[in-house]
Amino acid sequence: MASSLISRQFALSLQKNLWLSAPGCRYVSKAAPKTQVEFDYDGPSMKTSVPGTRSQELTKQLGDIQNVGAINFFCNYDESRGNYLVDVDGNRMLDIYTQISSIPIGYNHPALLKLMSNPNNLSTLVNRPALGILPPENFPNKLTESLLSVAPSGMGRVQTMACGSCSNENAYKAMFIWYRNKERGHNIPSDEDLSSCMVNQVPGCPELSILSFMGAFHGRTMGCLATTHSKAIHKLDVPSFDWPIAPFPKLQYPLEEFSRENAQEEARCLEEVEDLIVKWRQKGKPVAGIVIEPIQAEGGDNHASPDFFRSLRNIACKHGCAFHVDEVQTGGGNTGKFWAHEHWGMDDPADIVSFSKKLLTGGYYHKDELQADKPYRIFNTWMGDPSKNLLLAEVLNVIRKENLLEEVTRSGKALINGLYELQAQYPGILSRARGQGTFCAIDICDDATRSSILLKARDKGVLLGGCGDRSIRFRPALVFKDYHVHIFLNIFNEVLAQHK
Amino acid sequence: MASSLISRQFALSLQKNLWLSAPGCRYVSKAAPKTQVEFDYDGPSMKTSVPGTRSQELTKQLGDIQNVGAINFFCNYDESRGNYLVDVDGNRMLDIYTQISSIPIGYNHPALLKLMSNPNNLSTLVNRPALGILPPENFPNKLTESLLSVAPSGMGRVQTMACGSCSNENAYKAMFIWYRNKERGHNIPSDEDLSSCMVNQVPGCPELSILSFMGAFHGRTMGCLATTHSKAIHKLDVPSFDWPIAPFPKLQYPLEEFSRENAQEEARCLEEVEDLIVKWRQKGKPVAGIVIEPIQAEGGDNHASPDFFRSLRNIACKHGCAFHVDEVQTGGGNTGKFWAHEHWGMDDPADIVSFSKKLLTGGYYHKDELQADKPYRIFNTWMGDPSKNLLLAEVLNVIRKENLLEEVTRSGKALINGLYELQAQYPGILSRARGQGTFCAIDICDDATRSSILLKARDKGVLLGGCGDRSIRFRPALVFKDYHVHIFLNIFNEVLAQHK
Repeated sequence: MASSLISRQFALSLQKNLWLSAPGCRYVSKAAPKTQVEFDYDGPSMKTSVPGTRSQELTKQLGDIQNVGAINFFCNYDESRGNYLVDVDGNRMLDIYTQISSIPIGYNHPALLKLMSNPNNLSTLVNRPALGILPPENFPNKLTESLLSVAPSGMGRVQTMACGSCSNENAYKAMFIWYRNKERGHNIPSDEDLSSCMVNQVPGCPELSILSFMGAFHGRTMGCLATTHSKAIHKLDVPSFDWPIAPFPKLQYPLEEFSRENAQEEARCLEEVEDLIVKWRQKGKPVAGIVIEPIQAEGGDNHASPDFFRSLRNIACKHGCAFHVDEVQTGGGNTGKFWAHEHWGMDDPADIVSFSKKLLTGGYYHKDELQADKPYRIFNTWMGDPSKNLLLAEVLNVIRKENLLEEVTRSGKALINGLYELQAQYPGILSRARGQGTFCAIDICDDATRSSILLKARDKGVLLGGCGDRSIRFRPALVFKDYHVHIFLNIFNEVLAQHK
Repeated sequence: MASSLISRQFALSLQKNLWLSAPGCRYVSKAAPKTQVEFDYDGPSMKTSVPGTRSQELTKQLGDIQNVGAINFFCNYDESRGNYLVDVDGNRMLDIYTQISSIPIGYNHPALLKLMSNPNNLSTLVNRPALGILPPENFPNKLTESLLSVAPSGMGRVQTMACGSCSNENAYKAMFIWYRNKERGHNIPSDEDLSSCMVNQVPGCPELSILSFMGAFHGRTMGCLATTHSKAIHKLDVPSFDWPIAPFPKLQYPLEEFSRENAQEEARCLEEVEDLIVKWRQKGKPVAGIVIEPIQAEGGDNHASPDFFRSLRNIACKHGCAFHVDEVQTGGGNTGKFWAHEHWGMDDPADIVSFSKKLLTGGYYHKDELQADKPYRIFNTWMGDPSKNLLLAEVLNVIRKENLLEEVTRSGKALINGLYELQAQYPGILSRARGQGTFCAIDICDDATRSSILLKARDKGVLLGGCGDRSIRFRPALVFKDYHVHIFLNIFNEVLAQHK
């Protein structure tokens, strides 16, 4: 059944006109200058509560193999399309969480189905190279047409990696290497450097640090984890580094109504950053780099102003620290710009920008001087996966062809305005609606109410995720349109009415 | 040109008889009980020295984007087949390095081309799920038919990850979590645990350690890197942990001729391991786990006896440390058994076994008690990639159908005997021939001679890799047969004759 449907989709995708309607699917055509049609369902369709019987059976089965405490339900990815995720019990949900913000243009986009069924791409799927030593012929061109075509300002260099954590780990290493060469005044290590590093000791393994922020999330491998401070469950029982942690501004929303208070709060945090840099230098653990998310995501969708980031970037320059902007969750278009840091309006926003999730491959951009001075310093077996670069190149084509960043800005306005309205309507439940593009969030009065709301919304066909202590985060795909916003708002309203 | 050829391969792969010969390709049929035929080239074919003009151009182009100091040459993966890697200048090389030991059954294996061109698999290629929360319907079955079908003795649980480093990082975390719960006597953290871990401090982020061995390689992210001690270039300038590092036995080869001396050396190392465990416990940084490779690969193909590993496993048990066997490079069949640790003949070889490379997906198996007690402790966005599980399931089918482990044992004997002969013939250049299955190595008199031999062999059509200070490692695919061994030995002999 599932496989027959995907065969049908496959057949459709190979036809000249990719955008055929099919039974149960919505065919939308607009008079816009570029193609703005979509292969999508009409709306949610719920047959059982979630997880249904089949999901429960499979969860039990998987429980013999893995911890299944985080499993929501099992999915039928063959039947899922556009903004709709279909589960194994036949429930079809409007997906505003998109696999923890990692599905860029919806499920089974015809352009991607076509790409992956092109026999010319077969060898990329079956022969994964060690990119650092034996890249494929098209590798420089693929990087140019995919990652470099959306490179942040001032960055012409990019290193691919397999996932977000690896990307940040290697970005940190690049900053440490850069910083030590700067300290040395050259890039020739001493004999003592070389021998001591083999046994984890100074000076070869120096006592450098990365400054991060409370509430930050930068990944879960041990280097990243030392800069992650969003939830105890991520960090508990894992050894860490004594690195400085600055407060992230706790702003009041809507931002424009509290500009004076927020500016004060940001100034307080910036002062603390400088104090920590000085203090850690005195401790003998100088700050090689500062890492920050443009919007703290996992930590609760915490925003800061462009002024804050500009000042922070200046502090980094002043103290000789590298400035690393982690766009793993914010990158890829959800904020209405391809990179969230573009909202800061700076020509020189960062030294390193890392990415993953919606970019489908991990990696990081960097300025020339952040490139490791020798081969094999930033290295591993695969260093990414060319099959993901293929997908990304096509995703970027679709984003351009379908003007998806404009769509995001449009849907984002509808979404935030809808959230403001609901917040006015349910002041006892909702507060602090905030967002940029469709990268929005709202706070719920308490964690228990949030859980209940998330489950009820899911049973009514809307899939959402939490973040922070009591926020709901909105992370739709870039193909999330006005009318999807309204489907969501209607259902959310129903759920809230039951909680009032 | 390249794409027309791959289309031809694709077409062939879809025909009922997958094993057609094609111009320039070898059609081998044996009278063995199961299919033992192969889609492969006749032998190396060299048109230029390597890297040729086209590779040099592309290296220059990539140099504007990345550090290219480690690039060997650029490849034409469409034209590569079986044991032969074709470069962009039309050179065809017998590949005995296989993308740093990560290609299990050769290039463009017809079974994998067929698999990836099956429209039923399209949705797996374009919809990458967040496996920890929303797995696909077939996920438990795919795990069962792929990873669990080759699970190490005593292990029914497996966690997938994106790469080798992530696999080891998460395995270490699992050991830390397990150890701390053991110390507590229960799994309920104190309020102090929960608050202190948020700022990287004890007791929430405890001062636990992992014991590793000199010469080990376990990856390059910061947790793994603290247990890697093979080359300074990997570790230089990166902060690390003060964790214990034991000597790995320096054995004399052939092992059977030096059993008394080697047993003494192993006893010395084991004694040191126990001393370090006691010392680090006294330091307040108890050893939560011991990590070791069955054969130190990157560090120079250093072997130890089954007795050594059995004793080490006992020491781990005695001192309450978890025992983690890192099979990232040794796993997947090259040693003649699917896992190198199977050569130890133990029912209970380890608590954790990690893998990547030839398994095509990263991950680790573990005993029940090493499963994290709560969800989201071992977690990330993707937690692997189902498209790699698909490939792995088919690779395992091919290994079984084509009896590839038996082939490896057979080719491995031919390889090691050939190396012994060459070593006798060129005693001034070669020494310490060693290996298990085709996982072999030999030492060269010095690093400069090694470099020269590697380049000359490459120009004659044999691709090899180095390891340690002056070793050459052999890492062919599992489809490397007797006659490939002889092609290699003939060319290697020619190269050595020039150096004599």
